[in-house]
Amino acid sequence: MNNHVLRDISYGMYIVSLKGEVGCFINTLTQITAQNPIISISLNKENYTNEMLKQEKKFAISILSENTRPEVISQFGFFSSREVKKFEDVEKKFVEGIPVITENTCGYLIAEVMQIIDCETHDVFIARVLDAEKLLDQKPMTYQYYHEVIRGKAPKQAPTYVEEKIEGCTTQGFSKYQCIVCGHIYDEAVEGVKFDDLPDDWVCPICHVGKEQFQKIA
Amino acid sequence: MNNHVLRDISYGMYIVSLKGEVGCFINTLTQITAQNPIISISLNKENYTNEMLKQEKKFAISILSENTRPEVISQFGFFSSREVKKFEDVEKKFVEGIPVITENTCGYLIAEVMQIIDCETHDVFIARVLDAEKLLDQKPMTYQYYHEVIRGKAPKQAPTYVEEKIEGCTTQGFSKYQCIVCGHIYDEAVEGVKFDDLPDDWVCPICHVGKEQFQKIA
Repeated sequence: MNNHVLRDISYGMYIVSLKGEVGCFINTLTQITAQNPIISISLNKENYTNEMLKQEKKFAISILSENTRPEVISQFGFFSSREVKKFEDVEKKFVEGIPVITENTCGYLIAEVMQIIDCETHDVFIARVLDAEKLLDQKPMTYQYYHEVIRGKAPKQAPTYVEEKIEGCTTQGFSKYQCIVCGHIYDEAVEGVKFDDLPDDWVCPICHVGKEQFQKIA
Repeated sequence: MNNHVLRDISYGMYIVSLKGEVGCFINTLTQITAQNPIISISLNKENYTNEMLKQEKKFAISILSENTRPEVISQFGFFSSREVKKFEDVEKKFVEGIPVITENTCGYLIAEVMQIIDCETHDVFIARVLDAEKLLDQKPMTYQYYHEVIRGKAPKQAPTYVEEKIEGCTTQGFSKYQCIVCGHIYDEAVEGVKFDDLPDDWVCPICHVGKEQFQKIA
């Protein structure tokens, strides 16, 4: 079994958000039905947005375009709404009290949870689309685009900067681990900490999944 | 509510297949969990592959690359396994008796259904990945790529050929309808049949969803 094949699944890039300016980056949005549309998203159970979505039920999806600032992706992928006011430095508007990102977004959906499916480490939220509006006529950003173009341009403060610098280099005695969800690479040689020595509650700085979702790649 | 926003959701292109050489084109593959991975796909209830998957439980996903022949997409999207031997003209191998496409595919997954979620016109199949193998080092095809590049090159016999020719032209008294799932455009002026006059069991020639999943666009 070669789990790397899972990286060939294509995704878009989205911000899911709730009342109270809670939100995070996701890539797992899928449209399930067309008439009176139903969509699904999945969220790690340890994620604050998951916890709050179970209470709030209503959420927005902002569809990120290729022009999205890397800082926005970092802000929503790198930090937890428990600790950081993620929406402070981003252009937004409020729809039914839910923040929707208006800078470089193709459009947004407002949806309400119909059903929650327990899938071990994650929950799948099946939801009815209540509203959908177009914002900008820009190309939706795919994960592939993000990895190929945005990571290459990532500023020094972006969480992806280091990986680009070290790509292709392997230091003796150190290993690299890759997040199977978002592709982020943890390099022991750069971080100075063995992956196994990271605390149990350490999470991927990009997509917030736990250590168990990293695979040794070198 | 502007349902067109749903077209900005990004997808990959896949063939789901079962024992007995049953299969169809899908775009709704999502990875849900990483360790001991769980995935989900959704299938229209009227789809033969849906019916057979409920019996078989085990299925393969072939991940299509950008080099996929348009004829393969047509074959798996245009016809029903009820009527056509879809795997006859495609390079394949069998894994546990399930056909996997080996021409221009990035890799494949073998998965087993854990849970089926009823979502009105569609079912969501939650499944455990049992096996995953890399095949070719080619770029996975996205829906966006398919629409922008492949449809432009579509041969005369391809179902998408006509739409390209008519793009941008509107004939008085006739309307155009677009499939909200795959983007296929039904043009009354070209087809010579009003959309409302199509039989109730008419389905999208590309992705097989029903009439109710088309929206009037012009």
